[in-house]
Amino acid sequence: MSKDIREADVPDAGVGAGSRRRFLARGAALAGGAIGAGAAGAQTADNTPPNVPAWMKQEGQPLSKDPYGLPSPFEKHVIRQGRGDQVMPGAGSLQSPLQHLRGMITPNGLVFERSHAGVPDIDPAQHRLMVHGLVKRPMIYTMDDLVRFPSVSRIHFLECSGNGSRELRSPFGKSVQISHGLVSCCEWTGVLLSTVLEEAGVDPRGKWVLAEGADAAGMSRSVPMEKCLEDAMLVYAQNGERLRPQQGYPLRLFLPGWEGNISVKWLRRLKVAAEPFMTREETSKYTDPMPDGTARQFTLLMDAKSVITYPAADHRLRQKGFHEISGIAWSGRGRIKRVDVSVDAGRTWRQAALQEPVLDRAVVRFRLPWQWDGGEAVLQSRAMDESGYVQPTRAQLIAERGMNFGYHNNMIQSWKVGSGGEVTNVHA
Amino acid sequence: MSKDIREADVPDAGVGAGSRRRFLARGAALAGGAIGAGAAGAQTADNTPPNVPAWMKQEGQPLSKDPYGLPSPFEKHVIRQGRGDQVMPGAGSLQSPLQHLRGMITPNGLVFERSHAGVPDIDPAQHRLMVHGLVKRPMIYTMDDLVRFPSVSRIHFLECSGNGSRELRSPFGKSVQISHGLVSCCEWTGVLLSTVLEEAGVDPRGKWVLAEGADAAGMSRSVPMEKCLEDAMLVYAQNGERLRPQQGYPLRLFLPGWEGNISVKWLRRLKVAAEPFMTREETSKYTDPMPDGTARQFTLLMDAKSVITYPAADHRLRQKGFHEISGIAWSGRGRIKRVDVSVDAGRTWRQAALQEPVLDRAVVRFRLPWQWDGGEAVLQSRAMDESGYVQPTRAQLIAERGMNFGYHNNMIQSWKVGSGGEVTNVHA
Repeated sequence: MSKDIREADVPDAGVGAGSRRRFLARGAALAGGAIGAGAAGAQTADNTPPNVPAWMKQEGQPLSKDPYGLPSPFEKHVIRQGRGDQVMPGAGSLQSPLQHLRGMITPNGLVFERSHAGVPDIDPAQHRLMVHGLVKRPMIYTMDDLVRFPSVSRIHFLECSGNGSRELRSPFGKSVQISHGLVSCCEWTGVLLSTVLEEAGVDPRGKWVLAEGADAAGMSRSVPMEKCLEDAMLVYAQNGERLRPQQGYPLRLFLPGWEGNISVKWLRRLKVAAEPFMTREETSKYTDPMPDGTARQFTLLMDAKSVITYPAADHRLRQKGFHEISGIAWSGRGRIKRVDVSVDAGRTWRQAALQEPVLDRAVVRFRLPWQWDGGEAVLQSRAMDESGYVQPTRAQLIAERGMNFGYHNNMIQSWKVGSGGEVTNVHA
Repeated sequence: MSKDIREADVPDAGVGAGSRRRFLARGAALAGGAIGAGAAGAQTADNTPPNVPAWMKQEGQPLSKDPYGLPSPFEKHVIRQGRGDQVMPGAGSLQSPLQHLRGMITPNGLVFERSHAGVPDIDPAQHRLMVHGLVKRPMIYTMDDLVRFPSVSRIHFLECSGNGSRELRSPFGKSVQISHGLVSCCEWTGVLLSTVLEEAGVDPRGKWVLAEGADAAGMSRSVPMEKCLEDAMLVYAQNGERLRPQQGYPLRLFLPGWEGNISVKWLRRLKVAAEPFMTREETSKYTDPMPDGTARQFTLLMDAKSVITYPAADHRLRQKGFHEISGIAWSGRGRIKRVDVSVDAGRTWRQAALQEPVLDRAVVRFRLPWQWDGGEAVLQSRAMDESGYVQPTRAQLIAERGMNFGYHNNMIQSWKVGSGGEVTNVHA
């Protein structure tokens, strides 16, 4: 039923190259203060160093203070936050502070979380993974067993399919953290699920696999066998270290490019069967009613999406002139090919620069230089991936799916810059 | 004076491909327990799930418990550790636990640290960067100024040139953390130093730049102008979030591929001059006496290096049969091209698989399947980079530099596996 826009339908956008030279030509007026010119920050009138700060006059903290390093106390506002719709202490989500993040990698402390019955404290020595159902050799694995298998590491995004669900009806998020913070990108390490399934020996009738978590919700989803054998991973490490409890410690399923919910955390059981199990999370939840009375179900692939993270709601531009528009883009279909940025609500577009490396189903950072004239502006970004898919507008999504869907809202986001520099979430 | 080995001198190594098929053919005997066969871990004799663990019978931790996420309490042994040679609480190093890490990215909490006068608690609102000396427009920048500049993100390793210095005379490190843990790999975000220097306008006589830190040591190094204009960065973020205090919060210099000490942390001052400043850290320290009475000085590039992180000293092999040999390789000259692994102290070599993406001056994870026969073995790895440089043996390094150097020891490391499975650090 998809009526995706294709890249061929999208006119060429002007490329942002050359803007850096313009930025440099305007140089000194833009940032910093020329010494002796009375600019803010200049502390001395000649070529001597700034005053020696207090922290140079005493020895700093000992090395042993933080054997596991922590952020500066001056960064304590950079935390995961919810959107205020938690129904129980353990059921809800905490979003990643995209407005404070740089680059493509999400640090482990700030990876988003979506849990259904809280975060279990699992002893890895007690944890087991059972593989059974339509297999020749049912197996139970310890964590030590799983870690001994051949391993792979992959940098991929992970996005909750509910990310942005509140944005369809009205501009909801007061910041990009609240509107779009259910996406993160990490380096995941584990064993390919195909390796484990080949050990167990899948019966030819086995076309689906139930994945069950060891949380109090027993969160369960059905995964098509094709995906299990293609690129699914049993993941135990994230950005180098073992998984965080909120991300499924000690073991999670990871399905690159698919909705986060099906990458079942605290994974304890895989049962092979001929049909999907029609669990709660793929029937009453994670499906969408369509205008024609049918429901979109097993909508597992995450379509291309992007969002500007600076300037974004919750930011305030304090000076006219140069600002670097920056954001992130990702697609479950493969690599991001191009991101266009508009500062006039989509009337004209310029092509943003993509930060290398641009990886398969990973977040890519895009950037575009912008001269803000001090007037009103509406900023938008539009992602295209290597399959040719183009991120849709809100109107295009509504035309296809109506107003009653909640998952997989990947509409183009609009941020309005007011003449005072304040940035707000709008529909435009 | 370099007498590097070149790749052309190194015979072809057998490729590890095909080994995965062998692993799979041996399948069930290697890992896990077939249910009902009495194997360890099997809790049920038929196809029912394992016993329901305690953590499924109660709601887990609330989402609000850790707005900045932390590792599981079961991982509290995975911390940075020193090698016992700290002369003052703030002068020394803490090493990264390589034996526990996976993939290429080092998580921020486990990035190694080398400090000279402790870790200063710097208020970013008070921090300034001064650019002066042989420039047309001396400048003082606030952090807000610097963050407004066009930004770049790069995944690069960072290694202290003293990494492994104790290993030359005798096998010192009881673990790979102690022997090789002064290397990490992160995604660094900041502004190119060339952007800032172009604003200041460098005088043509300016060939060196003094970089001074705002710690109590006023740690200072001289950087050649060519590097400053080529790819040096002023970095304020690391794996997405702002720098950790131990890594220079709020601002550090970052010189891709060069020794860690010159990527000055807590950066407060850049002074352009015609000659190097001959600071303490580039005269009495970070230089090496050579056998002919001269000293190696300004040895800034980090040569190619690799180390096996599993199995490594501090590990113990508990079963004969399949083990995945895994390690990391990196080079200041560019991309790693090939890593060979030996299990017989360098008599024969096999080529390891390199985990994509293999990035310029970044850590790359290598892996090789291995069947351990239960006997003694000596494991080694040997890195080659795209420049053709080959990691030397200890004997080759000593022949070139004698026994009195301490920095830039990139010799091939040997781990001995005993017949009981214990792994120890040896010279071989």
